[in-house]
Amino acid sequence: MDIRVNFERLKGDIESLAQIGRDLKGGITRPSYSKADLIAQEWLKEKIEAAGLLLRQDGAGNIFARLEGKGKTIMVGSHIDTVINGGMFDGAVGVLSGLECLRRIKEENLNLSKPLELASFVDEEGNLVGDFLGSRAFIGLLERETLEKGMTQFGIPFTDVLKGTQFTIDSIMEAHKQRLEIESFLEIHIEQGPTLEMENKPIGIVDSIAGKHYRWCAFLGKASHSGTTPLELRHDAFLGLADFALRSTQHVATKHYGSMVTIGKINVHPGAFSVVPGQVDFSFEYRSTSKETLEELEKSLLALAEDIASTRGLEFKSTVVDKTEPVKMSPRIIEMMKEECQKLGYPFLMIPSGAGHDAQIIAREAEVGMIFIPCVDGISHSPEEMINWKDLEKGANLLLAVLLKLAG
Amino acid sequence: MDIRVNFERLKGDIESLAQIGRDLKGGITRPSYSKADLIAQEWLKEKIEAAGLLLRQDGAGNIFARLEGKGKTIMVGSHIDTVINGGMFDGAVGVLSGLECLRRIKEENLNLSKPLELASFVDEEGNLVGDFLGSRAFIGLLERETLEKGMTQFGIPFTDVLKGTQFTIDSIMEAHKQRLEIESFLEIHIEQGPTLEMENKPIGIVDSIAGKHYRWCAFLGKASHSGTTPLELRHDAFLGLADFALRSTQHVATKHYGSMVTIGKINVHPGAFSVVPGQVDFSFEYRSTSKETLEELEKSLLALAEDIASTRGLEFKSTVVDKTEPVKMSPRIIEMMKEECQKLGYPFLMIPSGAGHDAQIIAREAEVGMIFIPCVDGISHSPEEMINWKDLEKGANLLLAVLLKLAG
Repeated sequence: MDIRVNFERLKGDIESLAQIGRDLKGGITRPSYSKADLIAQEWLKEKIEAAGLLLRQDGAGNIFARLEGKGKTIMVGSHIDTVINGGMFDGAVGVLSGLECLRRIKEENLNLSKPLELASFVDEEGNLVGDFLGSRAFIGLLERETLEKGMTQFGIPFTDVLKGTQFTIDSIMEAHKQRLEIESFLEIHIEQGPTLEMENKPIGIVDSIAGKHYRWCAFLGKASHSGTTPLELRHDAFLGLADFALRSTQHVATKHYGSMVTIGKINVHPGAFSVVPGQVDFSFEYRSTSKETLEELEKSLLALAEDIASTRGLEFKSTVVDKTEPVKMSPRIIEMMKEECQKLGYPFLMIPSGAGHDAQIIAREAEVGMIFIPCVDGISHSPEEMINWKDLEKGANLLLAVLLKLAG
Repeated sequence: MDIRVNFERLKGDIESLAQIGRDLKGGITRPSYSKADLIAQEWLKEKIEAAGLLLRQDGAGNIFARLEGKGKTIMVGSHIDTVINGGMFDGAVGVLSGLECLRRIKEENLNLSKPLELASFVDEEGNLVGDFLGSRAFIGLLERETLEKGMTQFGIPFTDVLKGTQFTIDSIMEAHKQRLEIESFLEIHIEQGPTLEMENKPIGIVDSIAGKHYRWCAFLGKASHSGTTPLELRHDAFLGLADFALRSTQHVATKHYGSMVTIGKINVHPGAFSVVPGQVDFSFEYRSTSKETLEELEKSLLALAEDIASTRGLEFKSTVVDKTEPVKMSPRIIEMMKEECQKLGYPFLMIPSGAGHDAQIIAREAEVGMIFIPCVDGISHSPEEMINWKDLEKGANLLLAVLLKLAG
């Protein structure tokens, strides 16, 4: 079964989908359930039907294309929603490569033993009520209250977003009941980081997806006049954060190579030239592919913050915004990927995924595997998101080869 | 001439003026030329006329009360405008203590050799077109363009602010032509810092007013995905600022004791949980009572920022927003103040002023001296601004004694 994807067709599909939801800043803005997304959903359904695949859409809006077989399903998928002002490859590469694989298998009339299914999950990007709405709905991990009370990042209730669609909170909550049993799940995605490009490898075989803790924190000090409060009498909340940022970064860089720590959002109060900052609120996130490391980081970094606060006469506060656990990829699938790379002559790198993906949700119910392809300069979630198309061709061929192996 | 101020009358005046311009947050909002300020101006003029002093208002809105004499004028003054949501003592203490001194001298029918004049300068707080509008107009330091093109901090052109008043750009520009020659200028003010209170001294004799450099700066790096960009490959603009904040503070604290450095306003871009900061814009201010130190700080701190930028793969940018030179108080007046403190039995501390005052502008044309009184917890520019009234009584008596000495 030595078949290859039709690369020009795949490339054409990616370029076509990229026309839907173009925004004025040169990027793509296609959050789930938006008008642009509903148009993209229709576009995808037409593609599936034109390919002669069995189309299904569940109550959450997840779209499926099936090739029947016996036993548990071998699934491939990703998402077609985007962040605000995002790029054309994140998500789309996974759905359309999966579609191309199924199309080629159908065209070749291959007689596979197991059923194959493409999945396109809604709101992977978490524009609405947290990451992975579609795959969570698919697995059955949602809580009704999250949907009923959820406020989207657009400042409107989630329930208002649903009004323009055929979907309801009931239909989303029921989506998982329509699910057939999944054996394996594969996803191909751009790396969203610089490593593969730097190492000059067209393929990354993902060994794990990092878990992460999102926290919203604050150092509280005392605002005072910057001209009249001697340095040694200040309770400068911002200097507390500066100290914490450097020392937490140093801790992770020296003791937990490969893990991440980031302070990305900062509000300083009162925020004026001549006033010593009395309070600073900030996002604090750390990630690791190891559960133990994540626990160590939680303990040691919070202790560090408390220590800095006490040394500097400040108060430290922290609340959890979100926590996800690290997920290991299936050793069996990793082995298959390595073998197929060798057969196809594709250089590869074993790589962890720092970003989250639908695969980590599906991992609750099935063995999962992920393929990364490089993206230029590591840029993602941006209109500048770009790939080397030759890498995509390799990645899609690897995906096809592994799917065929899994489906027997 | 062993006379004292009428303290209850002075306290009553301060409490009365504090009723004009009360805002909903429990403070006072009385920027110059606002309705509240025009009412306060009328209130002050009535007080001056009731005291039998010669009232004059110049084309900038500065209000004067004169006791005639021969030769150059001995002036005392401050301002009655406030910051937004400010307190009741900043400025008001100086104007109303000066008024009380002149009132007492008039009541006693003292025959002084030199003329005495109270001045209440407009917009010391710089709500409109930079600090010290009134005293700059009085000395003749304004540029017409600043007024014509000036945007106020309320987001409207300065020329619009003038529309509700009798003042025009012409009248402000001409104000200094009405000025008589000044020999000495005295100002009493709250410290706006914690030092006097901590040292338990009712009187601060100011030896100098710090100069300051206001800069608007930026570190520019590269925004990237916080989950997929390894720490060692990041160009995190915020970590550059964190490093700079700690090291610039350390430099000033260890090498220039008494000088100040402050980062008070910070904007991080793009400012999201999962994005490594690509740019951070921030205010950067340093102050010193020594011209040489200020020059050293300019050179060494900007070099430090460049060094940090180059080490961390960032770019550093900086533009000057404002620069003022340090000003020395008159040694002759300082000596008089010390002597009078000893006679009156008031403990005092020699102290620099980190904040700016009208006195530093008047210093261009006359010898100047300043008296500080403590404020509770060092708090100023806030509804919580408070004093120990007994300290004010001492400060006003000292002011009166020095005025009498200067006026012969």
